[in-house]
Amino acid sequence: MENQVTLVQKTVVLTPDGATERQECLAIEEPYTVALNDREIGTSMVLATALEEFGAGFLFGQGYITEPGQVREVLVCPEGRISVHADVEEGMEPREVIITSGCGGTGRISREMLEGAFEPLAECTITFAEIRAFIRQVLQASPLGLETHCVHGCGFWADGRLQAHYEDVGRHNAVDKVIGAILLGRFSPRGAIYTTGRLTSDMVLKCARIGIPIVMSRTAPSSLGLAIARRAGLTLAAYARPERLNVFHAPERIV
Amino acid sequence: MENQVTLVQKTVVLTPDGATERQECLAIEEPYTVALNDREIGTSMVLATALEEFGAGFLFGQGYITEPGQVREVLVCPEGRISVHADVEEGMEPREVIITSGCGGTGRISREMLEGAFEPLAECTITFAEIRAFIRQVLQASPLGLETHCVHGCGFWADGRLQAHYEDVGRHNAVDKVIGAILLGRFSPRGAIYTTGRLTSDMVLKCARIGIPIVMSRTAPSSLGLAIARRAGLTLAAYARPERLNVFHAPERIV
Repeated sequence: MENQVTLVQKTVVLTPDGATERQECLAIEEPYTVALNDREIGTSMVLATALEEFGAGFLFGQGYITEPGQVREVLVCPEGRISVHADVEEGMEPREVIITSGCGGTGRISREMLEGAFEPLAECTITFAEIRAFIRQVLQASPLGLETHCVHGCGFWADGRLQAHYEDVGRHNAVDKVIGAILLGRFSPRGAIYTTGRLTSDMVLKCARIGIPIVMSRTAPSSLGLAIARRAGLTLAAYARPERLNVFHAPERIV
Repeated sequence: MENQVTLVQKTVVLTPDGATERQECLAIEEPYTVALNDREIGTSMVLATALEEFGAGFLFGQGYITEPGQVREVLVCPEGRISVHADVEEGMEPREVIITSGCGGTGRISREMLEGAFEPLAECTITFAEIRAFIRQVLQASPLGLETHCVHGCGFWADGRLQAHYEDVGRHNAVDKVIGAILLGRFSPRGAIYTTGRLTSDMVLKCARIGIPIVMSRTAPSSLGLAIARRAGLTLAAYARPERLNVFHAPERIV
């Protein structure tokens, strides 16, 4: 069953010349509680799509799940609960937690994760023709962004095609849905991710942790987002459009 | 002493025709830990401006500080710590916490706050000429937004003039800085706030809690942002530009 994710609202458009009525489309933001092995970890405001992926990705972002293969089952209850069952060690509490500038669900990373080392990334390249197809397909597949101006889109490209595409009220949540799909075994992280949101530290960090070699945004990175990309050795491209992009680190993967 | 908040970075612009070099300006995102009466409450990624205001506003967003007059002193240590001393009850722990879709520091609100009642708002109106001046001044005062594409601006208008204006890597943090200035007694909440960020639930909630009657955004609200505006009775205007705006609730305050 598809959840309703938008609603239409009558508004009054005011200009110095007077008032007219206009319908606007709003994104529906709802609280969902994520539980890991029957223990509630947190409640997040989301766009209620791809909630299995979101549940897994959310727990990865918070540091409870660390790699594909750990998730056994995800059950979504439409009353607002996502129950993830996973083979993880008990007591995986992140220690010192940093609240991030992230427009998105997770909003918290541990200082340990921020300062830790990364596994080497898999070999991976992408061509310009692929980037063009990738970005066009993500933007076409994200009608809610244009309709509501209140959601971010995020897509994943590997093996010459768009593997997945998600939207959410938070730029983080949309990325978490992609990472959740990786955790659920839908595709490998060896590819490129494209987000319509900014690449602040926490956004780049989760891509680096799951092992995505190419990270692209429609808009800008922050200083710390770039610093993490450098440490992880991943390709960071910003202002990415079908015909051009600015590479801030590791351009050699774009061929 | 002014903190450095941007850095210039060499990038490679790739197009199908080849590569050129280009300098880009990045916003510097830094972790700051906020302590209340010597107890650490959280660490947030911020743009290091107006840190006194941010510290007070952050603690308001998290529910520890509830009204102007409670803050006695704010000390900022450039190594990354903001110490707020305030007359608040001990054990003001927010209970069930919701992680929000907010692009910004706080990212967490209590379910209690989300569902609670609001105090009646002060009488307040704004004219079109004021809105025009307000939005123009906020956008002019926010050069970092255009330079970095990685910060949000937020301004406050009352008594016929721009009272304050802040920027941050998070749309929440920028609003928190305005609310912090209210908490520090710089001006009363009886006025209008304008943010370049989206009005999701948590954004509208904190404006309602501090008692701001007119809340405007350059972009869109979410469904729950609008629901909170209705419950609080505040004027919610979106897509607000100098010459037009869409009023989603309570247009009578715009005269």
